[in-house]
Amino acid sequence: MTNQTIKVVIAGARGRMGIEAVKLAEETSHFELVAALDHTHEGKKLSDVLHTTSDAPIYTDIDVCLSETAPDVLIDLTTPEIGKVHTKKALEHGVRPVVGTTGFSEDDLKELQQLTEEKGIGCIIAPNFAVGAVLMMKFAKMAANYFPDVEIIELHHDKKLDAPSGTGLKTAEMIAEVRESKKQGHPEEKELIEGARGADYDGIRLHSVRLPGMIAHQEVLFGMDGQTLTIRHDSYNRASFMSGVKLSVEQVMHIDQLVYGLENIID
Amino acid sequence: MTNQTIKVVIAGARGRMGIEAVKLAEETSHFELVAALDHTHEGKKLSDVLHTTSDAPIYTDIDVCLSETAPDVLIDLTTPEIGKVHTKKALEHGVRPVVGTTGFSEDDLKELQQLTEEKGIGCIIAPNFAVGAVLMMKFAKMAANYFPDVEIIELHHDKKLDAPSGTGLKTAEMIAEVRESKKQGHPEEKELIEGARGADYDGIRLHSVRLPGMIAHQEVLFGMDGQTLTIRHDSYNRASFMSGVKLSVEQVMHIDQLVYGLENIID
Amino acid sequence: MTNQTIKVVIAGARGRMGIEAVKLAEETSHFELVAALDHTHEGKKLSDVLHTTSDAPIYTDIDVCLSETAPDVLIDLTTPEIGKVHTKKALEHGVRPVVGTTGFSEDDLKELQQLTEEKGIGCIIAPNFAVGAVLMMKFAKMAANYFPDVEIIELHHDKKLDAPSGTGLKTAEMIAEVRESKKQGHPEEKELIEGARGADYDGIRLHSVRLPGMIAHQEVLFGMDGQTLTIRHDSYNRASFMSGVKLSVEQVMHIDQLVYGLENIID
Amino acid sequence: MTNQTIKVVIAGARGRMGIEAVKLAEETSHFELVAALDHTHEGKKLSDVLHTTSDAPIYTDIDVCLSETAPDVLIDLTTPEIGKVHTKKALEHGVRPVVGTTGFSEDDLKELQQLTEEKGIGCIIAPNFAVGAVLMMKFAKMAANYFPDVEIIELHHDKKLDAPSGTGLKTAEMIAEVRESKKQGHPEEKELIEGARGADYDGIRLHSVRLPGMIAHQEVLFGMDGQTLTIRHDSYNRASFMSGVKLSVEQVMHIDQLVYGLENIID
Repeated sequence: MTNQTIKVVIAGARGRMGIEAVKLAEETSHFELVAALDHTHEGKKLSDVLHTTSDAPIYTDIDVCLSETAPDVLIDLTTPEIGKVHTKKALEHGVRPVVGTTGFSEDDLKELQQLTEEKGIGCIIAPNFAVGAVLMMKFAKMAANYFPDVEIIELHHDKKLDAPSGTGLKTAEMIAEVRESKKQGHPEEKELIEGARGADYDGIRLHSVRLPGMIAHQEVLFGMDGQTLTIRHDSYNRASFMSGVKLSVEQVMHIDQLVYGLENIID
Repeated sequence: MTNQTIKVVIAGARGRMGIEAVKLAEETSHFELVAALDHTHEGKKLSDVLHTTSDAPIYTDIDVCLSETAPDVLIDLTTPEIGKVHTKKALEHGVRPVVGTTGFSEDDLKELQQLTEEKGIGCIIAPNFAVGAVLMMKFAKMAANYFPDVEIIELHHDKKLDAPSGTGLKTAEMIAEVRESKKQGHPEEKELIEGARGADYDGIRLHSVRLPGMIAHQEVLFGMDGQTLTIRHDSYNRASFMSGVKLSVEQVMHIDQLVYGLENIID
Repeated sequence: MTNQTIKVVIAGARGRMGIEAVKLAEETSHFELVAALDHTHEGKKLSDVLHTTSDAPIYTDIDVCLSETAPDVLIDLTTPEIGKVHTKKALEHGVRPVVGTTGFSEDDLKELQQLTEEKGIGCIIAPNFAVGAVLMMKFAKMAANYFPDVEIIELHHDKKLDAPSGTGLKTAEMIAEVRESKKQGHPEEKELIEGARGADYDGIRLHSVRLPGMIAHQEVLFGMDGQTLTIRHDSYNRASFMSGVKLSVEQVMHIDQLVYGLENIID
Repeated sequence: MTNQTIKVVIAGARGRMGIEAVKLAEETSHFELVAALDHTHEGKKLSDVLHTTSDAPIYTDIDVCLSETAPDVLIDLTTPEIGKVHTKKALEHGVRPVVGTTGFSEDDLKELQQLTEEKGIGCIIAPNFAVGAVLMMKFAKMAANYFPDVEIIELHHDKKLDAPSGTGLKTAEMIAEVRESKKQGHPEEKELIEGARGADYDGIRLHSVRLPGMIAHQEVLFGMDGQTLTIRHDSYNRASFMSGVKLSVEQVMHIDQLVYGLENIID
């Protein structure tokens, strides 16, 4: 495909994800960073407040920003509250949003869907931008059609509070959509120590490993007579999300509706 | 789906794959084994020549066999030469073939395709019946659209002569269909010992491990900024092929054309 | 080392382990199978009752057997009850026992220890002959001195009743001997679904995966700032035990006491 | 063990490893950072030049530094040239060196060995401080006594120039010390594509994977009839080296000679 230059504005550029997005925009030859949206620093340049070579101007007013810089895409990496406002505003300006925040309600999504239709432009909202994790979940769902027995092992650093992880649960939910609920293991299996067989989500077993040094890893294991199939994703750092942001910016230019979840632009 | 009984004939029932197929037919409640095709043992029962409870009669003449027993499906697990003859004969009798032998030429396939169209019935030819291996290859091809950097590690017992394995090469071929050829690794990388970076297939690196004790394993590794995605298949014994035979027998009842390769009935 | 021929008698030769041991004796050039001990088939040859080329005579009386054939080593793969009797008898005859049965009490072991000292010959009793599994446990114990955070994942076929597995528990016990008891994970971690964090053995977390197709696998994972260390053992079939039997037969010739557990002859 | 406070000086505190070492000293309750050695910043405090809360003074003269602050241990993370000078000076002052630089010749080591004996104090020089990697190599060497068939897969980011990696080669060397040289794989195995079977070091096969996203990983695979044993180390970032520095500082207090290589203080 010919890579025509895509003009982008980044909201939340000084946040942890935002810093990576600025880097992405700089390193991608067909992306042009035309402005940053912030709640402060009006009138400064990005290079004044961030370790970057970009001289993109900082705006605090989204209407002024989008009018003056006329971007193709707004990348929003702020908070759920602000993200909602930004997304709507962008669409009204005819700017395609790529949004990494969560917290959109069913009603919010309906309203945005209507707006995209009116304007005839695309909008992508993705709770998880790691392409590899999204592919893992997609493949797991596909495999479950043929391998009904499945267990999930997710491994994280020991600072993590919740077990199972969000991605682990999301994977189990997606699998449960396509396979009939079933009890796994031996019908009379016995836990000599409680918890050995892990958490039970609709018959799918989930195991949460927590060890210092680990980052964010997950394995989905499928078993069938004489064979096993394993799908594993390892996320080592925040850079892993940028491939999904890049893909979304490219794809949002070619669609004319709302897409929720990266799995729906991947095939 | 309602599982109507499917009447099957097995050719090659005394072979290593055939024995497993007989077991499969016995254990699957909606399969009925109505006969076996052999080059000898005419008039005997399967239980006379095999460790099985099946009393299915053995035929040496395919025409007589298919006429008298009127099966829905012929499962052929013989040799390339015999498999070709059987497949054609079965179609002529209006019996749907599920064939596990290789060696069909382009011309053979065209002829069979025409026959299936004339008869309006399905035919499935599959060089690899291990559903997990087929899914691994399918997923690898899909992932390569998003992760252009990929390496393949295949691990087998040390009795294996060829490196890389057939599945390893097939996987590389399928990936090469969707990604642009590229040199991987550092542009100036250097092998301190020859062969360290593995075999090069269109830029994809393949590594063949051969160790006693191992059976048949493969990992496809994809890397991208901050993340890796791994798809692994382990095949422990011949039973791994039966899931694919079962699936094929069920699917061949619902199609009216020739399908070559299990990946084309899996979605 | 020069491999002087070692004359062996096998008790339990027709059992599943015994059949493998007969194969081992046939394939090892410095082993000579001089007799088999059985509860029946007196006077027959091994080749009469087993698929083997060995013409070793079968005895039903251990005293007669050991007197007439004067072996160096008795390999006992019978039952706990018979194994105990055989071990004592062998030592009294000056024959070194290599025993694969469990069920010896503290008192039994003390009595046997005394007998080995009196006779000045070795005796090896091993509940687990898989060298790889024994090494995994040994390494895990060593690593725990430096990596106090550890979790165990054991994976088995779904016919297995107990969770965690015996090897999983044994590994945890061995680790607990060298590290101080500690609570792992975040002090305030929370299970969203009960069991997610696995079984708790002295702070060590154990996770039991049960899937069709799997055989017997275990991973011991250690984590520390910035790194993880993983030790994994895969057992594919019963042949995996024979390496330990071979090693034991060779080692028992060089020791003059009782050794309980393969880990104590491995260094 | 009672953890008496150990007074340390760090040389190279502003380097990438040094920054981690300062953090280590701050976080370890029984370590006290009494000074930093640098080629500049004389008279300043560490907190003036580094993001740290430590007020340890910076010295540019090692003699003055060691005389005035009387540390127990000098942690040297400078360059080979400076490291050599520092190590000798420290020993002369009766200060125990823990050195992370390479480049010591046989003669250097002999001279230092003599100095430690004269002074009756310990000195530890370690080319690799990652405890997990050192354990992996140690275990691999031990396992090779029982599993003579072994292959090594090392996986790194695609910025790496050399293949195999230094750790991969070191592992092969250590294994080669204990096992007899042997050709692995099928005697008549054939590479359909050159390099498939990897690099050959004394019969041991090494495979180098290079993918973006990866960091530094290695697997050592052992195979034997019916089983495999795998030892894997994953290094995610520089923090992985600090466990080895900590261990060395603690151990150097208890020895009275030169130790080269972390594997020699680990058992």
